Amino acid sequence: MTSLGEGEYALLDQSWHDAITPDAARRMLIAAAHAFADKGYHATTTRDIAARAGMSPAAVYIHYRSKEDLLFQISKVGHERSLKVLTAVQDPDPRDRMAKTVAAFARWHAEFRTTARVVQYELGSLSPEHHAVVAELRRKIETHVRQIVEDGVKAGSFETPDQNGTALAVLSLCIDVARWYRPDGKRTPEDIGTLYADLALRMLSKSV
Amino acid sequence: MTSLGEGEYALLDQSWHDAITPDAARRMLIAAAHAFADKGYHATTTRDIAARAGMSPAAVYIHYRSKEDLLFQISKVGHERSLKVLTAVQDPDPRDRMAKTVAAFARWHAEFRTTARVVQYELGSLSPEHHAVVAELRRKIETHVRQIVEDGVKAGSFETPDQNGTALAVLSLCIDVARWYRPDGKRTPEDIGTLYADLALRMLSKSV
Repeated sequence: MTSLGEGEYALLDQSWHDAITPDAARRMLIAAAHAFADKGYHATTTRDIAARAGMSPAAVYIHYRSKEDLLFQISKVGHERSLKVLTAVQDPDPRDRMAKTVAAFARWHAEFRTTARVVQYELGSLSPEHHAVVAELRRKIETHVRQIVEDGVKAGSFETPDQNGTALAVLSLCIDVARWYRPDGKRTPEDIGTLYADLALRMLSKSV
Repeated sequence: MTSLGEGEYALLDQSWHDAITPDAARRMLIAAAHAFADKGYHATTTRDIAARAGMSPAAVYIHYRSKEDLLFQISKVGHERSLKVLTAVQDPDPRDRMAKTVAAFARWHAEFRTTARVVQYELGSLSPEHHAVVAELRRKIETHVRQIVEDGVKAGSFETPDQNGTALAVLSLCIDVARWYRPDGKRTPEDIGTLYADLALRMLSKSV
């Protein structure tokens, strides 16, 4: 029930940064994401990022205006990609749509945990203009999941005392996978996706 | 059903740092928690912490060996307090025990979100010896919630395809409250506790 379609899998297997060109800009973005995850945004210098990418500090400024611009690009591309992963699921049945959406979103946060952590924990370091762009993407993600809950309630598939609170909780559960997931742990990203799809349906179940 | 007993409420209303003495040591610990939350552990200096506490940089070393020692004390006291909040709930019925435990744990993460974020996101900055102490407290927290799940399954109150995975998910849901909770938002810590208690029972419901 929770297995994804071919196009949905293709999207998950594609890294969030695949669309960034040229190659040097992509390498720098990946280096920045890892540096921010290791030391935090404030303790990272553009020199650290250049060193990780095997480039000169000046090379950073060919592609990015500032360290904050790098954080913004990581946040923007990361949110765009996770929104794409959510919206790729097109099942007409709200239960199946919710299960597949949660499976894909949870799996994405396990696979791209380093980016996801930076994106989630460093929101406050974005400039107000950049924060507004990312906040709009976050609203779209929330609205998308709220809509599935609403559709399910209307269709008589879901029952909940708090539609928006439950939609938020489902998203929160998936996002927090990025905090605790370890690739050397017992569960694969797919296992987590399957478990979380079931938990989300239980959270919205009619029969409690 | 999910309302807490008097002793449980008293524990929640007490700040995590109330037991730290003398007053100067407590002020420093609170200043450090806020500085780490704002700038990240690596970008914070003991000078920053002293300035926030309104003390001289040398005064820090009267009470703490190093910046890392401050992080360790915050992590240790934070984990000890959240474990205490969990174990204060003593209801004999597994459903009621789970509901009250989740309500208290979720509420704690809303109330003490700044500390909780530092504690959760800066685990990797602890020395190996200090990390081991905190890891032991984390295992106790996990074991406690797993035990409630196990008791509920044995008593026929809960049904789940994955006891440990669901226990972890319940904890994760509560911990992530520290990331998204805003005191100026629509929901109070109590509202979140009530909603999450219901969601946890749904996640373990027999009737799905």
